[in-house]
Amino acid sequence: MTTTEEIHLVRRPRGVPEPDDFAHVEASVGEPSDGEVTVESLWMSVDPYMRPRLDSDQPLDAPLLGGGIGRVVESRHEKYREGDLVRHSAGFRKRFVSNGKGLSLVRADPQIPLSVYLHALGGTGLTAYGGLLDVGALKDGEQVFVSTAAGAVGSVAAQIAKLKGCYVVGSTGSDDKAKWLGEELGLDAVINYRREEIGPRLAEVTPQGIDVYFENVGGAHLDAALPRMNVRGRIPVCGMISTYNGEGEGVRNLFSLIYGRIRMEGFVASDFAHLNAKFVEEMSAWVKAGSIKYQETILDGFDRAPEGLIGLFRGENTGKMLIRVGE
Amino acid sequence: MTTTEEIHLVRRPRGVPEPDDFAHVEASVGEPSDGEVTVESLWMSVDPYMRPRLDSDQPLDAPLLGGGIGRVVESRHEKYREGDLVRHSAGFRKRFVSNGKGLSLVRADPQIPLSVYLHALGGTGLTAYGGLLDVGALKDGEQVFVSTAAGAVGSVAAQIAKLKGCYVVGSTGSDDKAKWLGEELGLDAVINYRREEIGPRLAEVTPQGIDVYFENVGGAHLDAALPRMNVRGRIPVCGMISTYNGEGEGVRNLFSLIYGRIRMEGFVASDFAHLNAKFVEEMSAWVKAGSIKYQETILDGFDRAPEGLIGLFRGENTGKMLIRVGE
Repeated sequence: MTTTEEIHLVRRPRGVPEPDDFAHVEASVGEPSDGEVTVESLWMSVDPYMRPRLDSDQPLDAPLLGGGIGRVVESRHEKYREGDLVRHSAGFRKRFVSNGKGLSLVRADPQIPLSVYLHALGGTGLTAYGGLLDVGALKDGEQVFVSTAAGAVGSVAAQIAKLKGCYVVGSTGSDDKAKWLGEELGLDAVINYRREEIGPRLAEVTPQGIDVYFENVGGAHLDAALPRMNVRGRIPVCGMISTYNGEGEGVRNLFSLIYGRIRMEGFVASDFAHLNAKFVEEMSAWVKAGSIKYQETILDGFDRAPEGLIGLFRGENTGKMLIRVGE
Repeated sequence: MTTTEEIHLVRRPRGVPEPDDFAHVEASVGEPSDGEVTVESLWMSVDPYMRPRLDSDQPLDAPLLGGGIGRVVESRHEKYREGDLVRHSAGFRKRFVSNGKGLSLVRADPQIPLSVYLHALGGTGLTAYGGLLDVGALKDGEQVFVSTAAGAVGSVAAQIAKLKGCYVVGSTGSDDKAKWLGEELGLDAVINYRREEIGPRLAEVTPQGIDVYFENVGGAHLDAALPRMNVRGRIPVCGMISTYNGEGEGVRNLFSLIYGRIRMEGFVASDFAHLNAKFVEEMSAWVKAGSIKYQETILDGFDRAPEGLIGLFRGENTGKMLIRVGE
């Protein structure tokens, strides 16, 4: 019997979560039985989808639901050996025993940093890839708008669209991020929605309308995009971060769907398992070639997970928000 | 040279149109040249889609855009003979000359009243048929919600769903209409949204959720339906009458699209030309068998067209709103 550490939710947040909504708890962890492995956490992933869960699905006084990458430190499971790297969804726990459910082997390319398997080559990358190409049915050369284009999913979606020869507009909330999107990622136009009114500005920079709006925000962003959609346009709905805290503005322009025959469709990464092999092959090549760039906000130390979650919802991250637990 | 009468838009309405937004105008009409016909209006169709047009597409001081059924009274067009019945989109005009563009022959079944070719067997019927079966991809036995289920489109959609063995809930705005939906059309549950709070009531009467929400209203209706949608549910968007007057409430529950993988998709009747032959065959049989019931609100007299339009937007009609011009 050894000890582990866990991050618990101890109170349901109102609006943006606060530090006192969470607790850093010490717990015991047993030895693995037959068919089990012990995993030590290396990286933990902090994601927008975690916010709505805090309102209902996430049990109180239990480890935060979430995923990460860890190393197998002891194995009595035929599929895993000591030293194997695994992706898991075991929540925010420093060390845990697993029967293998929710685990999958990460065959990390030595030329790619391990943390990338939690974003561009992980769930967020697959979300962008499947959302844009499968749900969004993107065709080469189309007109694309990506909201929160500097985010973990948005930045991959915007770059895939550029790789497909599209005209790409991105929105973001800071000048630094806007600069990165324009100068580093080569987006055709960038909107800083905290400085500029999203509606008029989006109209200005989409002279040929929008064929695919990759939706991460909702509210005023969606109201700005709807009247710009071309006939038979698609709105893959990846997230609506403006509404997760129950604050957001109501959407008023949905009638645009009718004459435009616009399709809006929600999705989650797990819908794209059938695309995974092709995704890993294409994305690994793009990452190694430097065609998909990324930014990471890394907080060092297991106990900083609540800080990461709160920071994400305050927009304090640049790119993927990660907690580094060990090496 | 003879005279005709026309209904013009003379002022853009603010909110619900008022009588002074329209004028009843006398005009002259020439003789048909080679390749032309003269048509006399018999029935004019008053439809929800006309409202948004009044804000922009509809020119001022010109006949109201709209469709109807008329009789060819003089023909120099090879396709039409005197006495033929034609469907037209020539606008609110008592008599007009046409080169055939926008005209189509109505092969009326003598067992079916002519006015039915302007609703159950016309554009509204095809809208319901294609919206539910094609865009909505309805499967037999699914859970269905139809808003404004007593309306021209809604009542056909609800009855097709019943014919397909579905559990069907409808909303409407009056007790009379609610009674008709429950007792005559046999809907499984009816919500009077003026008496009952749509959200809690819809939850109560959809214990198995909703697979297809046939959307005519938007606003609070959509917010009530979104959290009830089953995974992979579909929302064919036919109309959003609550938002046409620029008044409606903003929609706040769109994030439900994400985890539910819900598809919302707009459409118009003209998308369904490829379904028309099958539609006419099936619908004629259903109407003659009494399996598709309908109600009509008929205003007698050409000059009552503005009254019809205003009444439609005040919800004063029961079923299809029609202007009878002649026999």
